[in-house]
Amino acid sequence: MIAEILSVGTELLMGQIANTDAQYVSRRLAELGVALYRHTAVGDNPARVKEALGEALSRADIVITTGGLGPTEDDLTKEMVAEYFGLEMQLHRPSLEAIEAFMARVGHPMGENNRKQAYFPVGALILPNACGTAPGCVVEAQGKAVAVLPGPPHELKDMFEKQLAPWLARRSGAHIESRFLRVFGIGESRLETMLKDLFHTDNPTLALYCGPGEVQARVSALAKDADAARAMIAPLEAEIRRRLGDAVYGEGADCSIEKTAFTLLKSRGETVTFAESCTGGLLAARLVGVPGASEVLGESHVTYADAAKARVLGVKPETLERYTAVSAECAREMAEGARRISGADWAVSTTGYAGPDGGADGTPVGTVFIAVAGKHGTQVKECHFRGQRAFIRTLAASWGFNMLRLEMEK
Amino acid sequence: MIAEILSVGTELLMGQIANTDAQYVSRRLAELGVALYRHTAVGDNPARVKEALGEALSRADIVITTGGLGPTEDDLTKEMVAEYFGLEMQLHRPSLEAIEAFMARVGHPMGENNRKQAYFPVGALILPNACGTAPGCVVEAQGKAVAVLPGPPHELKDMFEKQLAPWLARRSGAHIESRFLRVFGIGESRLETMLKDLFHTDNPTLALYCGPGEVQARVSALAKDADAARAMIAPLEAEIRRRLGDAVYGEGADCSIEKTAFTLLKSRGETVTFAESCTGGLLAARLVGVPGASEVLGESHVTYADAAKARVLGVKPETLERYTAVSAECAREMAEGARRISGADWAVSTTGYAGPDGGADGTPVGTVFIAVAGKHGTQVKECHFRGQRAFIRTLAASWGFNMLRLEMEK
Repeated sequence: MIAEILSVGTELLMGQIANTDAQYVSRRLAELGVALYRHTAVGDNPARVKEALGEALSRADIVITTGGLGPTEDDLTKEMVAEYFGLEMQLHRPSLEAIEAFMARVGHPMGENNRKQAYFPVGALILPNACGTAPGCVVEAQGKAVAVLPGPPHELKDMFEKQLAPWLARRSGAHIESRFLRVFGIGESRLETMLKDLFHTDNPTLALYCGPGEVQARVSALAKDADAARAMIAPLEAEIRRRLGDAVYGEGADCSIEKTAFTLLKSRGETVTFAESCTGGLLAARLVGVPGASEVLGESHVTYADAAKARVLGVKPETLERYTAVSAECAREMAEGARRISGADWAVSTTGYAGPDGGADGTPVGTVFIAVAGKHGTQVKECHFRGQRAFIRTLAASWGFNMLRLEMEK
Repeated sequence: MIAEILSVGTELLMGQIANTDAQYVSRRLAELGVALYRHTAVGDNPARVKEALGEALSRADIVITTGGLGPTEDDLTKEMVAEYFGLEMQLHRPSLEAIEAFMARVGHPMGENNRKQAYFPVGALILPNACGTAPGCVVEAQGKAVAVLPGPPHELKDMFEKQLAPWLARRSGAHIESRFLRVFGIGESRLETMLKDLFHTDNPTLALYCGPGEVQARVSALAKDADAARAMIAPLEAEIRRRLGDAVYGEGADCSIEKTAFTLLKSRGETVTFAESCTGGLLAARLVGVPGASEVLGESHVTYADAAKARVLGVKPETLERYTAVSAECAREMAEGARRISGADWAVSTTGYAGPDGGADGTPVGTVFIAVAGKHGTQVKECHFRGQRAFIRTLAASWGFNMLRLEMEK
């Protein structure tokens, strides 16, 4: 099965947003074993949408469109699909009711333009939207298929995962299975050297993907079914794990360093708290992003000002004066203070310069001290990150979770 | 002048990266007054690159390619441009010398495949690469132009700004100027109704873009220079602001609701603190993301467990028992307690069900209470959000900043 992606939205051609919808769908198609040969993006222009759709359908078996399902006049993807195949648009009453219920719940009046979102080409398979008003659909005609998905990324992902992926899996014969090994603390080029001789096979294949502070090693195999593919992956995966040891913190595209920390805490029946300065709530926010976080987190504190470090966490004024707030000593007292006041089993602290300015004493931007306090003592690490403010804060939080996980595994 | 972008790289079709090159070039073309009607991305496949190039040239005056200039065998963009126009490839000696000097400087041996990067279609205008080995070029033939740019974003940006932008500005007469008005609290379809009669002009134009919890209204004008374009935008912008009132919280593609709150706090010399339950640190983390946040934030607290709400913030046990933690009463006491213990001028609290589960009493997922406490009292809002856990938390944090801004502006 050969697919193409057609994204619709003037905001793409204006450069207001990157086409992350196309990226997401592409990655998932690769995992589902669907060949993808082209992305096209056009603006909210009926003639150009229809022209691009026709071209894509002349080359591909299925075209997946993203965007252009909103309530406004220039949202016209479904209409152009109908026009291309010569189909009428028809009201889908369950969709209208779902949209009315959605608008009532969010307290907005139902406009005439919202009704438009409940019309579909005759015969379309409707894909309900769990996250917004615009349902998607799959239209099959003339031996081809067009899957119409909404543009907002969270709506697109939810609809793709729950509805389009199973539909595609049923259609596609071959099976690609992939494992994503998540590696923390080893840079991409060192990793490439460590695994050099493992890259030279066609099936299974090994590829590295670089993320902020971590690398994913993807092992993929193509086979007649999932079991056969998994059997091909297993020995390569085992060899990678043997070489990388505890730098492999988890597996799966949905895995993250905070989920790994959460799972470890939960399995041990333990709790954690954070004392954040430069990360300013990121550690807590990322842990709370994991469903069930209340089982391992009761409270957490951001102490950004020196006075707050002293008053809330009990950092000694002498420590702040002698070593400054950006010091191993301060990080240690922050973590130990947070653990004491919260009664948590573990505490992780961060203090550093995320930029744009470094310390008045010449300490460079990117200097961050991270401490992990537990019942067997406190570990402190001095890190030197490079990049913009947001990137440094993200890395500091990730290293905090990584230190916590390694301490727990000791 | 009509342009198209053709991006070359299998990594785009695998979904390994988003096409940020296309986004960057699109934004700059809009600023330079060059009309852009389509993005296309294909893999590192000679036949498909050549086919897509021919199609793009049949529609556009200029095609800007990104990627496929590396030293490896599957990098073939220049070769396909030459083949399309029937031109020979020719060694460009200054480029070869620059590549040799670059490789010597970074300490890598010069390979035969690096020589390939110094070959160009006969007659091409060479665009030297200040950041890497691959020079770009502009090929003009058959009344059309193809600009060939490298794929790595920092190389592309440098080459675009220093070399292609001046070339394009000389070619293009017109100038496009845009203003982005940021609107919070009015949904896209209601906004469209409120501004309906303003959409029907060709120049300036008005368009709406939907983001999480907010909408951007873009006003663009095409004129002979920036001043003339701005003069065309001003009356339309004034009319939009008159209709939308305080729902317009800022202007500019880089603006955000937390930056607006930060700027207001700073201009008044006031401070804020947060008492977060379901947002779990997101409010603090987003405010700390703004450089200079230490001027307006000293401390902040995540109180996820009921016991933490009571102990850290002083929420009354009777309140928790009678109304539960997800209640207007609890949100109010959280905000007032946080303001009291921190000494901040303002406090914002959040408590709700972000999912996957709602309340044991049947309160649905997405129910969030947000309170803002200040010296003139406390406001509480009950919100009903829909979507995944991460989306609900993001919306709750955004609404918290919006309530804070509106309270300050009262």
